[in-house]
Amino acid sequence: MLRTLDLTGVARGAREAATALATSSTATKDAVLRDIAARLIEEAPIILGANREDVADAEAAGMEASLVDRLLLTPERLTGMAADVLGIAALPDPIGEEFDARRLPNGIELKRRRVPLGVIGVIYESRPNVTIDVSALCLKSGNAVILRPGKESRRSSGALADLVRRALEANGAPADAVQIVRDPDRALVTEMLQMRGRIDLIVPRGGKGLIAMVRAQSQIPVVAGGIGVCHTYVHGDADVQMAVDIVDNAKTRRPSVCNALDTVLVHEAIAPTVLAALAERWAAAPVEMRCDPRALAILHGLEAPGRYLPAEPEDFGTEFLSLRAAVKVVDSLDAAIEHIEDHGSGHSEAIVTDGWEAARAFVDRIDAAAVFVNASTGFNDGAQFGLGAELGISTQKFHARGPLGLRELTSYKWVALGNGQIRS
Amino acid sequence: MLRTLDLTGVARGAREAATALATSSTATKDAVLRDIAARLIEEAPIILGANREDVADAEAAGMEASLVDRLLLTPERLTGMAADVLGIAALPDPIGEEFDARRLPNGIELKRRRVPLGVIGVIYESRPNVTIDVSALCLKSGNAVILRPGKESRRSSGALADLVRRALEANGAPADAVQIVRDPDRALVTEMLQMRGRIDLIVPRGGKGLIAMVRAQSQIPVVAGGIGVCHTYVHGDADVQMAVDIVDNAKTRRPSVCNALDTVLVHEAIAPTVLAALAERWAAAPVEMRCDPRALAILHGLEAPGRYLPAEPEDFGTEFLSLRAAVKVVDSLDAAIEHIEDHGSGHSEAIVTDGWEAARAFVDRIDAAAVFVNASTGFNDGAQFGLGAELGISTQKFHARGPLGLRELTSYKWVALGNGQIRS
Repeated sequence: MLRTLDLTGVARGAREAATALATSSTATKDAVLRDIAARLIEEAPIILGANREDVADAEAAGMEASLVDRLLLTPERLTGMAADVLGIAALPDPIGEEFDARRLPNGIELKRRRVPLGVIGVIYESRPNVTIDVSALCLKSGNAVILRPGKESRRSSGALADLVRRALEANGAPADAVQIVRDPDRALVTEMLQMRGRIDLIVPRGGKGLIAMVRAQSQIPVVAGGIGVCHTYVHGDADVQMAVDIVDNAKTRRPSVCNALDTVLVHEAIAPTVLAALAERWAAAPVEMRCDPRALAILHGLEAPGRYLPAEPEDFGTEFLSLRAAVKVVDSLDAAIEHIEDHGSGHSEAIVTDGWEAARAFVDRIDAAAVFVNASTGFNDGAQFGLGAELGISTQKFHARGPLGLRELTSYKWVALGNGQIRS
Repeated sequence: MLRTLDLTGVARGAREAATALATSSTATKDAVLRDIAARLIEEAPIILGANREDVADAEAAGMEASLVDRLLLTPERLTGMAADVLGIAALPDPIGEEFDARRLPNGIELKRRRVPLGVIGVIYESRPNVTIDVSALCLKSGNAVILRPGKESRRSSGALADLVRRALEANGAPADAVQIVRDPDRALVTEMLQMRGRIDLIVPRGGKGLIAMVRAQSQIPVVAGGIGVCHTYVHGDADVQMAVDIVDNAKTRRPSVCNALDTVLVHEAIAPTVLAALAERWAAAPVEMRCDPRALAILHGLEAPGRYLPAEPEDFGTEFLSLRAAVKVVDSLDAAIEHIEDHGSGHSEAIVTDGWEAARAFVDRIDAAAVFVNASTGFNDGAQFGLGAELGISTQKFHARGPLGLRELTSYKWVALGNGQIRS
């Protein structure tokens, strides 16, 4: 097969750009970002034209309407993307920050200085806006990026990457800081994942299948989230109104996101009241409740409104991404924690309680990226956490956990300033 | 082939122990460490007996004397190991530290809390003391560890691991927090490296070959150092005495360590003086100088003492680990930085200068785990940096760079404390 793309050449260009970008001033990086935002409006016709071709192909191929919608760009969506880029420009520059500074007994001034990771490879699916989000986050954090979009959006993402490259050039920054692999040949992804030393980090953005494939094949460090099987446990002493508000918010605010609730656990002491109130709230939504035998018996006994039916064993531990929730009555806080240990994915877990000891035990013992007391798991998000923006939410413990903001795209170097010290 | 060891069972035991250890008090962990130190003295006969068998086998197999020495344990070495463990017991506990705490506008109290990584796999070679170092560092940082020693030291390392397990049990901590894979079957290493989800981090401790094998095969995140090709650049304005002291210290203090000097770069303006002083200092050591043509011409012209000969191209970029140094005269700071970019391994790099701008440029532009101004690269070490102890020196940017102290063996979780917040 004839190879149309020299990935090694792409990576070499990215490395050179990364070296230049690592010492670029904040002013230069922010000027590029503001220029990207301006061009998203000014050059909208080019972008929308490319997008129309992608959408036409997708429709001709019989793509589902909801998936076509993920692919679609509109003037409003471009404006939203521009606003997000301006938001990233307004964030503090993480690069150059010095921390853990100390003066050693021998007089050496020692500190860690934050530096970019280098070259980041991002493999994603059909949302073209990811092209802009990822480029902006990588540029602000001083990293070069090699983008690999899904083939359905390759024209739209290609046009957006070209726009970013024009903004880089126009501001005296290296265009190769953002490169895109448009060739839909899947062998290129496999090849990218082997380029250890040339690419410093791989970030897959997409569904379970993509993440599992990348994790299995990559010879390069990966940061990824993957599934969020999220629980909210309502302890026996919870305020019922607060519990129902938090559970409902976690489930219905945006059911398709990874921090959405999948299972409600309710302490038996409060189960009748909470389940009755929840059944009423969810009759309207409507949320389908998949109940363990005790929860089901309570709801039947109350002749509660709404749709509730027996849970299958696999419902506990499933990420529904829809208006469906598993429901279980538990005997104790310990039983709730054990259930979460067995079925959670380490993403977002919450307790609703008025008890100090219960809250402490839950926070101490639950092993997840984010643990909430009396708040919705919906807050597990870079913007909500005050990081300004995020590349995703990591459920791994290595390198970065939870929202991947600008700081999570950096490393550090040790700087040691002396006046002649030698080691004995 | 009959499998004598169930690695999945080992990993399951490690996970359970890790869960218990994650919430163990500092007092319990430190009691275990002090008990390990006491047992290294009290139970010395058991350890030394096991070690004699390893040593006898190694000698019978014709192992080189220097390698046998790395394997050998003596009462003095056990005392040194006990002192190191007490040093780790005296360090602050990294677990539970909270940082980046803030109150969000919606009233949620948000913070990151430091937690252990979980289960760490360490694959090492013949030094049995690594068994104790690694166990102590992992225990203090709340991690369970699966040890895989080299086969030459399996009886010594096995006896030491058993000692650690007795100390754990005697103090009410889970013995399975430290487990050892004694079976010399190499397939077990391959199997360990595939256990993603069961083992959270792999640390290879040993030579280039071991590290390359682990990096190539592991499906688990790896932290490793590998080679240190370290430069010291003497700028034209350097104090000659300081420069010679620093260069000599970096080379001769311990030539076999990764932060030892490999190449000296000298600015042409100061080259005759520096090279003359260095040749004199190194005539005695003796250090063999492998010189580029300009350095060689200067030394010949001065009829300097010592051993200097023409460098082969591959001498630049070689980690010598011996009393040998490559020497090159450069025209400028830029040429020195470019040489380091091309030949360095990103470990430890130093400049000797009296110039503010030169020092700034060097620190800003050199991409290495540690960058030194007017100090010996020999200081790139966890104890010297005030971290107390280290598991190795990472030359990667992902997760941790430079000395791997206790903090570098941790992750964090986000803790969000609210009073009913829901997301709009």
